[in-house]
Amino acid sequence: MLKRYFPILEWSKTYSRDTLSQDMMAAVIVTIMLIPQSLAYALLAGLPAEVGLYASIAPLLIYTVFGTSRALAVGPVAVASLMTAAAVGELASQGTPEYYAAAIALALISGLMLLVMGFLRLGFLANFLSHPVISGFITASGIIIAASQLKHIFGIDAKGHNLYELSISMAENIGETNTTTLIIGVFATAFLFWSRKYLKPTLAKFVNNPKLTDILAKTGPVVAVMVTTLAVWMFALDVEGVRIVGEIPRGLPTPSVPPIDLDLWMQIATPALLISIVGYVETISVASTLAAKRRQRIDPDQELIALGAANVGSAMSGGFPVTGGFSRSVVNYDAGAQTPAAGAYTAIGIAMATLFLTPLLHFLPKATLAATIIVAVLSLVDIGAIKRTWVYSKTDFTAMLATILVTLGFGVEIGILTGVSLSIFLHLYRTSRPHFAVVGQVPGTEHFRNINRHKVIVSPTIHSIRIDESLYFPNAKFLEDTINNAVANNKEIKHVILVCPAVNFIDASALESLEAVNLRLKDAGVCLHMSEVKGPVLDRLKRSHFLQDLTGKIHLTQFDAVCSIDPDCANQAKNEARP
Amino acid sequence: MLKRYFPILEWSKTYSRDTLSQDMMAAVIVTIMLIPQSLAYALLAGLPAEVGLYASIAPLLIYTVFGTSRALAVGPVAVASLMTAAAVGELASQGTPEYYAAAIALALISGLMLLVMGFLRLGFLANFLSHPVISGFITASGIIIAASQLKHIFGIDAKGHNLYELSISMAENIGETNTTTLIIGVFATAFLFWSRKYLKPTLAKFVNNPKLTDILAKTGPVVAVMVTTLAVWMFALDVEGVRIVGEIPRGLPTPSVPPIDLDLWMQIATPALLISIVGYVETISVASTLAAKRRQRIDPDQELIALGAANVGSAMSGGFPVTGGFSRSVVNYDAGAQTPAAGAYTAIGIAMATLFLTPLLHFLPKATLAATIIVAVLSLVDIGAIKRTWVYSKTDFTAMLATILVTLGFGVEIGILTGVSLSIFLHLYRTSRPHFAVVGQVPGTEHFRNINRHKVIVSPTIHSIRIDESLYFPNAKFLEDTINNAVANNKEIKHVILVCPAVNFIDASALESLEAVNLRLKDAGVCLHMSEVKGPVLDRLKRSHFLQDLTGKIHLTQFDAVCSIDPDCANQAKNEARP
Repeated sequence: MLKRYFPILEWSKTYSRDTLSQDMMAAVIVTIMLIPQSLAYALLAGLPAEVGLYASIAPLLIYTVFGTSRALAVGPVAVASLMTAAAVGELASQGTPEYYAAAIALALISGLMLLVMGFLRLGFLANFLSHPVISGFITASGIIIAASQLKHIFGIDAKGHNLYELSISMAENIGETNTTTLIIGVFATAFLFWSRKYLKPTLAKFVNNPKLTDILAKTGPVVAVMVTTLAVWMFALDVEGVRIVGEIPRGLPTPSVPPIDLDLWMQIATPALLISIVGYVETISVASTLAAKRRQRIDPDQELIALGAANVGSAMSGGFPVTGGFSRSVVNYDAGAQTPAAGAYTAIGIAMATLFLTPLLHFLPKATLAATIIVAVLSLVDIGAIKRTWVYSKTDFTAMLATILVTLGFGVEIGILTGVSLSIFLHLYRTSRPHFAVVGQVPGTEHFRNINRHKVIVSPTIHSIRIDESLYFPNAKFLEDTINNAVANNKEIKHVILVCPAVNFIDASALESLEAVNLRLKDAGVCLHMSEVKGPVLDRLKRSHFLQDLTGKIHLTQFDAVCSIDPDCANQAKNEARP
Repeated sequence: MLKRYFPILEWSKTYSRDTLSQDMMAAVIVTIMLIPQSLAYALLAGLPAEVGLYASIAPLLIYTVFGTSRALAVGPVAVASLMTAAAVGELASQGTPEYYAAAIALALISGLMLLVMGFLRLGFLANFLSHPVISGFITASGIIIAASQLKHIFGIDAKGHNLYELSISMAENIGETNTTTLIIGVFATAFLFWSRKYLKPTLAKFVNNPKLTDILAKTGPVVAVMVTTLAVWMFALDVEGVRIVGEIPRGLPTPSVPPIDLDLWMQIATPALLISIVGYVETISVASTLAAKRRQRIDPDQELIALGAANVGSAMSGGFPVTGGFSRSVVNYDAGAQTPAAGAYTAIGIAMATLFLTPLLHFLPKATLAATIIVAVLSLVDIGAIKRTWVYSKTDFTAMLATILVTLGFGVEIGILTGVSLSIFLHLYRTSRPHFAVVGQVPGTEHFRNINRHKVIVSPTIHSIRIDESLYFPNAKFLEDTINNAVANNKEIKHVILVCPAVNFIDASALESLEAVNLRLKDAGVCLHMSEVKGPVLDRLKRSHFLQDLTGKIHLTQFDAVCSIDPDCANQAKNEARP
């Protein structure tokens, strides 16, 4: 029991010096990657740069205790930061204490929601976001994020939470572009794109140690940060209008309980829920991918608890919403992280940076952070997935396209809500039509097959319907209608047989439908039978009045059922058996 | 095409004098029943009595044109009237023009919503209210309605939209009970209960004509209305504090387009949607029951249009929301209604009453109308259904009980919302776990069966999973987890075979899950195969990269699949075939 909620008790038992050194190595690489990213995502969320660092300390320590994934790296990520900016931006202006307080509250509420879902074991709810919808949403979010960072590259002001607002706002202010900023921004972006693709092979030519190459290859963003910061400092470019990060308070955040503010909590409840779900879906997908590679298990419900606790921890240490990051976790895994302890070491690395490196970041230009974000999020834009979905299924493609267009045009909140609604709607639509087939006897056998696909014998007075699914309330009505229509269209029918080999369950609604069908058929002078009913289903039916009221009988096999009504059936089976 | 939207074009072609006389007879009986009911339900909705009559004219004429049910009788009904009172009561005080305007707007918006759902063919959405939830909701509504009418029986004031508020309010004012009113109320209630059960058999002793007996048996409420009205008039009981209906404007309503008021429309959108759905579910359930008895068809989507048009018609003639009434339709059917024309004749009857009878209703005591309502709605309370559901399924019972308790305690809107959410939640939960079985070879055969139920041969390196359902986004993840866990728990497994005889469809999400499973198994050194894949499913898979990337093969049968990996399988099939 204790081990279920504290997986650390399990893996720490076998923690060895080997594991320690592997985890430490992974932590070094992830720390190098995480410093510029956490600053950049705080910027994207409209928060002071240090908040990004705060969100990369406590949450990582907490995930180490509660997480079941060996390689997941939690912290601020792009999509959740954008969603934070969209949600908080509606309540307060950037830079005010209210804005920061709302971001903290968002992490708190989102964390509490995840915890509740975890204790109620509601992880399965995340399945109701279909992949094309999630993929479309992330692609659209990537585009909006990239667009929102262009203002920093140009050194201008621009506002907006969707592509339309951003374009209008950019177009109005493009005249005030700061050339120095633009040069830094373009240089940084170009360098980062280059380093992402070519830094590792270039380094490999000079360095013989592959581990070292791996580490150095991840330093692209750090190099960009250092070079541009130095340039601003040396040539006093901030005086020329290049916007910089400025004073970052030195020292660790003081743990504190966020104030209780029910009004605020009500206002952010919906975005908090959306951030929780989107964050959880991303987390669980990367965690299960990495776990499967090493034949390890993750517990989806415990992941809800771990992620929830991490967010509550973030809120209590002045941070904003965190989730498991995709690229960061892959780097962690590739660098050899063996246990969640790697996350704790990363947290220590970030804490050291917060204590000692922050004065060096004073002259860091915002354009460099924007470049980091742009390069990172453009990998979220997955045009290939759109094409593949178009080829594979037009229905799924429609849902995906709608999600993309609504997200781009109206922002992330309405976008993801549209996606979720569309997903559930499609699901309800599909499940409201159970798969069934009208069947007839295959000549010379005791088998019954679909009359549309096989040459079969059908008695004119018998209508046999094979139901290929369990019966419950969404599809019960459709079965009712199907039988009613069949009987209304063919006045010869005197017997209806429901063949139930695939019915694993009949709920109370479906039972009532069957009772209604039985009564109506009785009034219309038609007898209702059932065949091949599974044992547990029959046991349950015995608890109701249905079997007493049934006008026909329950038969073991469909062959028995038809034979009991039409003796010719048995002859058919024998006749052609001797050719 | 025209006939689909105007079913009147179909049935009017064969309209004969016989049909006419049968329809007229049914119309007379329904009119007698409808006059007191329409007054009473207007009272329940908090509206002037004449509004009930207005809602029983135009909607009936319109349903005659658009309806597909031969026996459905539309008009004001108890549950929709209660929901109207709850929705409108939040916006204005009873008796004000704003209250009446909001009720009209509710009918308009609810009608427009039904029309849109009809044109989009969304009738299937009504299936997502499970029967136990609907039944629980109607039982609870019946109790609230009966409780809300007690104030008229006692002649006191009381307010509230749930049982708690009503009890408190009644208890406060019970001291002001008007004894004369109480005597009239108790007498009327007792008489109506008696007449519902014993009037017909009593009449049958004196009247030889069964048709006439039928008509006379329905006159109970009319007799109660006449006797109590006469009593009030003769003894001037209104002076003694017996509350009466009072002046009812004589004459038909003037058709008019309700004013456009977007603010108001937004405020009533949610209750309008709830009334539409609850009304439609009731309508469709009674319509299909009656149609099936005579082997007739109804078109669920056209019924949405007919009901929508009827509500818009109600709004345009000063009425409030209408739906197909259960008891009224059964009476119409039993009285021999052959076509929707019976509804038009009923409308004419009500119009005549509105023109000529209204002066006679001046002294009608409200207590009599309350008695009519109480007797009518107590038949909605279905304790038997609660017991049956308890015995049959604890899950369904829980959903039902929650709906009843929330409706009683917090009112109809929150009640039905709880019911719908619970229904959909249960559905999502069930469908997130596809039915599947691990299978092995039945010795001496080529068949494969569930290893938990049969004595079968299982090769230690092969893990065969038979999937008994189509794969789509809600259950794709569960399959992923199942396979991951199986492979993580048993390191001997080298081959996973998915047996797909019941998979009718694989959507884009499930395809992505299968691709992920394939890649992960590859990384873990396990080969993925599939067998018994249906033709259409395979065709669709060919549109993706999955088949090229698949580490294993697609096999026609599970026997082929296992034999190709483990030649011992073929021996097993032969070995024991010769005993």
